[in-house]
Amino acid sequence: MKHALSLLCRTLPLVAIAAGVPSSPKPATPSEIVAAAPSEAWRAIPADQLLMIDLDTGQRVTIALAPDFAPVHIANIRILAQQRWYDGTTINRVHDNYVTQWGDATEKKPLPAGIIAQPPAEYDRDSKGVRFRPLGYRDAYAPEAGHVDGWPAARDGALTWLVHCYGMVGVGRGLAPDTGTGAELYAVSGHAPRHLDRNMAVVGRVLGGMEALTALPRGTEQLGFYKEGAPRPQIVHARLASDLPKDQQPTWQILRTDTPTFTAWVTARANRKDDFFIRPAGSVDICNATPPVRTN
Amino acid sequence: MKHALSLLCRTLPLVAIAAGVPSSPKPATPSEIVAAAPSEAWRAIPADQLLMIDLDTGQRVTIALAPDFAPVHIANIRILAQQRWYDGTTINRVHDNYVTQWGDATEKKPLPAGIIAQPPAEYDRDSKGVRFRPLGYRDAYAPEAGHVDGWPAARDGALTWLVHCYGMVGVGRGLAPDTGTGAELYAVSGHAPRHLDRNMAVVGRVLGGMEALTALPRGTEQLGFYKEGAPRPQIVHARLASDLPKDQQPTWQILRTDTPTFTAWVTARANRKDDFFIRPAGSVDICNATPPVRTN
Repeated sequence: MKHALSLLCRTLPLVAIAAGVPSSPKPATPSEIVAAAPSEAWRAIPADQLLMIDLDTGQRVTIALAPDFAPVHIANIRILAQQRWYDGTTINRVHDNYVTQWGDATEKKPLPAGIIAQPPAEYDRDSKGVRFRPLGYRDAYAPEAGHVDGWPAARDGALTWLVHCYGMVGVGRGLAPDTGTGAELYAVSGHAPRHLDRNMAVVGRVLGGMEALTALPRGTEQLGFYKEGAPRPQIVHARLASDLPKDQQPTWQILRTDTPTFTAWVTARANRKDDFFIRPAGSVDICNATPPVRTN
Repeated sequence: MKHALSLLCRTLPLVAIAAGVPSSPKPATPSEIVAAAPSEAWRAIPADQLLMIDLDTGQRVTIALAPDFAPVHIANIRILAQQRWYDGTTINRVHDNYVTQWGDATEKKPLPAGIIAQPPAEYDRDSKGVRFRPLGYRDAYAPEAGHVDGWPAARDGALTWLVHCYGMVGVGRGLAPDTGTGAELYAVSGHAPRHLDRNMAVVGRVLGGMEALTALPRGTEQLGFYKEGAPRPQIVHARLASDLPKDQQPTWQILRTDTPTFTAWVTARANRKDDFFIRPAGSVDICNATPPVRTN
């Protein structure tokens, strides 16, 4: 109830409660559904799919990686983290309502051995064998949107791809599709730029610390790049959780999308019946249905 | 071309140009279409529909008001600005991927005379007589999305309403629909929370200075409210442009949605054919088609 009442107003108009009709069972809110999820509705994200970026601002950004969608790019990213290549690189672009982008500002830092310099365009994959859970509501861009192992995705029958929702992470590139190694990454920080779908390698999702990327001064140069000489947050460390000692590995869990809990959550997101809502939307888009995560 | 080449990568891979096929006429990019728009494709926003909020950070937020959609709320907002009620109030909530909200943190500041304390629920309006320009692409939430005098909107035949895109401004309220006076306002700062459509009075759109609302530390309390005692940006002045001396009134123009230029721009947004794009989306959603604005 608390959640519903305070959605956009902190204080509770007491008169509304006093004047309320006799209470009847209320449908559970999305938050209540998540809070009541049984432990088997959650799955742990493997440690080698967790990339932690520690900034000199003292903040940590944690990213889940999607090796099933972009295996070559993610092999690169793992090498870059293991070889500590990201350490000392910076956030170089903060483009309002679009992306925050980081990497080597000089673009001259040599890449370590083992990096595939021209990865294939891992922008979509064959739909065959992909467990796709249809969202069940219209999509403005694709014939169908839904989830694959918790990842927001879309498909057209033949192919399936990850979509550019808020917080999704992709690989910056030049003009040619094979110019992005994973050395330059961006996180979506505004309304889903779905026109980038199938044009970029989407490699992950920010699970925690998004504020460290979004609450930054916007770049003043074209496309939101920081001006030469402007202060840039620096990456102190970027590490895979699997490369840390066991007792330092964070645990992140995601709500499984193949559970009744998730179905109830999506339905509740599409049909908000908290007291605050007067007219439920009757729909939800894929980027407003990113599966909940939790950490210890 | 510059725009296309540098979308997500600052430097231009020169090899791509050197190896390019003989040049053929390229379709204009969205930016090129806007740059080439004739003067009659623009309309000036009336001064009494421009609310400027000056913060103690030195930044200015400029908001266009939508009196055709929420006349009572906007009459309130005008009185609040004219009576200098907003001056000294603060930004109280910064909720990542949702809203930035401002108003009187104490919620005890008396409202000036003339304020309608319980405005009607101006959440939608009769579609009759409304000039609606269909976007021409699917919407995930409404039967149809489009523009009304430049405002992002949706309709179901009988009724038309403004939609919660990034940068849109609405009126905070309590549980009851008639509890929002306009004293507490929010701007959408993330992926469009379209479930709020028809549940809140949408009263405007941020035209400039969005960064002043989005590049702020996120609130640490429930729903992104700032903790008691946390520093809060303060509103120094909130004024209607029409209340300023003529020579201090800013000029803002918006691209008219009833022009061939706008149609070309929407089509180009839906079908990005800049060199950077490999696979045009073939679609665009209403919140990725907010009409361009410009100022002097």
